[in-house]
Amino acid sequence: MYYYNPWNLDYKQPFGAIKVGNSMSLRFATDQPSVLVTCVIRRDFGKRYEFSMTKDSGGDFRLTIPFDEEPGLYFYHFEIVESSDLGETRRFYGCSGIGGEGLLYTDENDVKPYQLTVFEKEDQAPSWYREAVFYQIFPDRFYNGNENGQINHPKPNSFIYGRKTDNPFYVKEENGDIARWDFFGGNLRGIIKKIPYLKELGINAIYLNPIFSGTSNHRYDTNDYLKIDSMLGRQEDFEELIQLLHQEKMHLILDGVFSHVGKNSLYFNINGDYGDDEGAAKNPDSPYFDWFKFENYPFEYKSWWGIKDLPEIDKDNDSFRNFIYGEKNSVLAKWNALGIDGWRLDVADELPDSFIKGIRENLDSYSDKILIGEIWEDASNKISYGKRRNYILGGSLQAAMNYPFRDLIINLLNGHRSSQDVAHQLMTLQENYPKDIFYNNLNNLGTHDTERILTMVGEKNLSVALAMLFVLPGIHCIYYGDEAGLSGGKDPENRKYFPWDNISPNVYNVYKSWTQKRLSENSLKYGEFSTFFTDRLLGILRYTDSEVFVELINPSEDELNIEVQEITFLQNLKFLPELKKLLTEKVISGKTNLELKMKI
Amino acid sequence: MYYYNPWNLDYKQPFGAIKVGNSMSLRFATDQPSVLVTCVIRRDFGKRYEFSMTKDSGGDFRLTIPFDEEPGLYFYHFEIVESSDLGETRRFYGCSGIGGEGLLYTDENDVKPYQLTVFEKEDQAPSWYREAVFYQIFPDRFYNGNENGQINHPKPNSFIYGRKTDNPFYVKEENGDIARWDFFGGNLRGIIKKIPYLKELGINAIYLNPIFSGTSNHRYDTNDYLKIDSMLGRQEDFEELIQLLHQEKMHLILDGVFSHVGKNSLYFNINGDYGDDEGAAKNPDSPYFDWFKFENYPFEYKSWWGIKDLPEIDKDNDSFRNFIYGEKNSVLAKWNALGIDGWRLDVADELPDSFIKGIRENLDSYSDKILIGEIWEDASNKISYGKRRNYILGGSLQAAMNYPFRDLIINLLNGHRSSQDVAHQLMTLQENYPKDIFYNNLNNLGTHDTERILTMVGEKNLSVALAMLFVLPGIHCIYYGDEAGLSGGKDPENRKYFPWDNISPNVYNVYKSWTQKRLSENSLKYGEFSTFFTDRLLGILRYTDSEVFVELINPSEDELNIEVQEITFLQNLKFLPELKKLLTEKVISGKTNLELKMKI
Repeated sequence: MYYYNPWNLDYKQPFGAIKVGNSMSLRFATDQPSVLVTCVIRRDFGKRYEFSMTKDSGGDFRLTIPFDEEPGLYFYHFEIVESSDLGETRRFYGCSGIGGEGLLYTDENDVKPYQLTVFEKEDQAPSWYREAVFYQIFPDRFYNGNENGQINHPKPNSFIYGRKTDNPFYVKEENGDIARWDFFGGNLRGIIKKIPYLKELGINAIYLNPIFSGTSNHRYDTNDYLKIDSMLGRQEDFEELIQLLHQEKMHLILDGVFSHVGKNSLYFNINGDYGDDEGAAKNPDSPYFDWFKFENYPFEYKSWWGIKDLPEIDKDNDSFRNFIYGEKNSVLAKWNALGIDGWRLDVADELPDSFIKGIRENLDSYSDKILIGEIWEDASNKISYGKRRNYILGGSLQAAMNYPFRDLIINLLNGHRSSQDVAHQLMTLQENYPKDIFYNNLNNLGTHDTERILTMVGEKNLSVALAMLFVLPGIHCIYYGDEAGLSGGKDPENRKYFPWDNISPNVYNVYKSWTQKRLSENSLKYGEFSTFFTDRLLGILRYTDSEVFVELINPSEDELNIEVQEITFLQNLKFLPELKKLLTEKVISGKTNLELKMKI
Repeated sequence: MYYYNPWNLDYKQPFGAIKVGNSMSLRFATDQPSVLVTCVIRRDFGKRYEFSMTKDSGGDFRLTIPFDEEPGLYFYHFEIVESSDLGETRRFYGCSGIGGEGLLYTDENDVKPYQLTVFEKEDQAPSWYREAVFYQIFPDRFYNGNENGQINHPKPNSFIYGRKTDNPFYVKEENGDIARWDFFGGNLRGIIKKIPYLKELGINAIYLNPIFSGTSNHRYDTNDYLKIDSMLGRQEDFEELIQLLHQEKMHLILDGVFSHVGKNSLYFNINGDYGDDEGAAKNPDSPYFDWFKFENYPFEYKSWWGIKDLPEIDKDNDSFRNFIYGEKNSVLAKWNALGIDGWRLDVADELPDSFIKGIRENLDSYSDKILIGEIWEDASNKISYGKRRNYILGGSLQAAMNYPFRDLIINLLNGHRSSQDVAHQLMTLQENYPKDIFYNNLNNLGTHDTERILTMVGEKNLSVALAMLFVLPGIHCIYYGDEAGLSGGKDPENRKYFPWDNISPNVYNVYKSWTQKRLSENSLKYGEFSTFFTDRLLGILRYTDSEVFVELINPSEDELNIEVQEITFLQNLKFLPELKKLLTEKVISGKTNLELKMKI
């Protein structure tokens, strides 16, 4: 018998990621009398260390390792040497692949190591952020606030949808390029007018997709970082929006798109829209010339994912860095000064770590701004462009967009993953992330880049999906219109205009009940997280010193009787006996969720 | 020496087409003493007749033939038998291929015969029509007359252009089908507001592209023949338009699109827009079922040129005929009663002769309505669907859209045809058409179906092209925006929005000077037509009993001195000596036109 489980405090302390300078204590249990155990630790892409473990009085092996070196990932497993009359046998113990309790291996090459995240410093979020319920707005598609529905300054050779109920559609050339951009004409005045609606829904923070001058309807092709897009309104409108939101104790973060610009930008200006002598593509002496990499001037240049509309920026260029965050009049300086409360960094995994740190330093000079990164995977161990990324190890991002949660929720409800599997994945994510990051992550059930949740799970699963989103730890973000019953697959279907005349009352009420719960339940804001499962059920726990909030998820169509002895708890929590009592004889019928609360 | 020339009254009388019941007198000249001449006449697709000609005192051969049979085309040539000591030689004389003076052939199979058009009755046009200067309006692209530029009732899943200066663009699916229709939002109120503009330009008649309820921006896909398209306005707007036009002594004709309907029409209703039980494609018991031909009900059906958007109508169906023109509440009855002044028949060459005659009979019950057919070729001899068409032989069309004139003008100015060739073609058209039709034809330099004239001939040729258009006989129609300097190739480029803020004063002034001349010069309205040419010049004559209007066209870049002896006149007119005097020593410099007038 050999046993190790990093999720159990009897075997590893502290739980999860540790901070540089701290030590990790391990216990490796065995009932074998004649063994020696070594802990093998490998620095990510680096050196291998071996630590002999010390046998304790109970026959288990123990080790305490200080982590004084630089932050990053470490991977460890155990080597066991069994001695007998026949000689020595070497065996290995490592991660099973789904986390927690491990596996015995005979060949070292097969061993899956445990991940240990060593971070540099805590990344506490501003207090408003931890209380936030976010709402993501794709501005062209939310609301046109002009008196007569007039569209502000339509762009040349663009289309306006005939009706607000039209299905979004990409207007393409035969070769697949966008021929004309399509607009509904939502604008900042529209958001201003809908502040009461958002407040009523329980929203207290907005994440706005790009609003700076651009050519497309999504405005990820920035033309001028210092100007509000004229279709969205004037800078005065934006200032009014900020002021009104703050009056309502609401917050606003912007989308920072710094990986690339638009080919028709002030900086690149390939068609000469900004004059014949401006921009890198028109003038090799342009101050912006060094921001770009031309392969054959001016028409062949490095572009984002090969999309020629989006010339890529060299983010190591000092002049660009100064322009974005270094100067007195930098892009960040301007919009921060106007009062925004943070930034969501577009394609954060394509930005150099030092660039993100530069942005964070800029934001840290204020007291209450948040920095969130767009990352689609487990951000603790993402390898991007051949390099392990360090953006959640302290002083960089404070949060990632939590797409892994979305995937788990959808896969559980669609039957593609078991509750056991989902529970393990949730625990693994908790283990891998520094604790602050884990609780700061911006969780979603869908964004402008994904299918809408209604389309992914169907109406009968929607309230369960929402329950999972709101009970899982992190900050919650509702994608505009999800609460109104909008459906749709990937872009462009997920970018319909908000159905102001046709809001589904059922869907809306489910969303509103969850925002209210999130705002009022302390355990959902600040509670620790754990999870458990049976063959058919998933349990999510959020607990504080005084109470436990239990969400039981039945992803099956069946009525399930909870048999307490069948439950696997993934952590050994002190209130388990009472919790088991609470769960005894509960019945949960068909695809639904059941909520229980317990004082402790 | 053998000679015959149908354009010379010494050889054929009357000139050109003749009316059933009249006779044709021919003279075939020769200086050969021992010949016999036979006139061979073939009925179009029918019998062959031979008439021995009679030698007159001068040695020429003469024949007078009565045409008492049914109208249609006849083709004739001459057979010559030369007798000598060596025996008989058989030779043939027929058309050269470009008309007028003929050619001697040795093999009868090679002979190109002369065409003779025999018509049933004169097709006099209403007097207002003969005085008309038309303006063709593609309603979506002319002017939006709403106070705030609001678009009336945009259609579901349609696009509105962001700016009025945008270039029109077809929004297509990958398979080439139209995905969304694109609109600028021009409407009837816009036309009402621009009546003063049209009046000022010298316009006194409007040809409107379709205005009945449709799905597309061109509305050739009629959904309801009895309704004004809601984007264009209400029936009240239309009634106001008619009333205001008539107040200004202006006239209006509509586009009659009876070959096919829209697949989403009340009559076909493939998507059920008009209810689940209406229309041929939803209900086999529909009163409209027999209008269509289903190959496999309901999704495979005969459609216009294979375009599934446009189910084809069986125009021989009595119920359809009654609906269009036969009933008290027919389509024609409704719009005629509202005061329109005539119809332009879409794809007239695809409508059965008897259907067109039915429409004409309906219109003849009023005193002053015109019927014009869309035909792209010489309408006198067009074969369509394997059948010679009879639509200009009396009691059918009163006029055709004169695309052949446009082709000749463009080809002359672009150097693709010689002045000799163009002069002959013009005479041939005059010869082939019944005289009324020839003078009733609606001449254009471009329509919604062609490139714009500015694009075809360039700015420096524009005034010459216009001179030709306005001096050639017929009724003249300006395609909206041509006078403002709009350019563009074929559809959709030829359907830009009218540039109200950017009307070219130069172009406008050329157009206006010609409309004024057309309105004031009697010879341009009612004068007979003839033509002449030199190697480099084309002359167009319009003459009355008292004056001759001469337009000299220099399609070359050179300065040309007119040498009278080099001129070929294609008809032997009594004022030629004076005309020659007038032309003596005239100089015409580079691509331009020169106008001369002469009293006789």
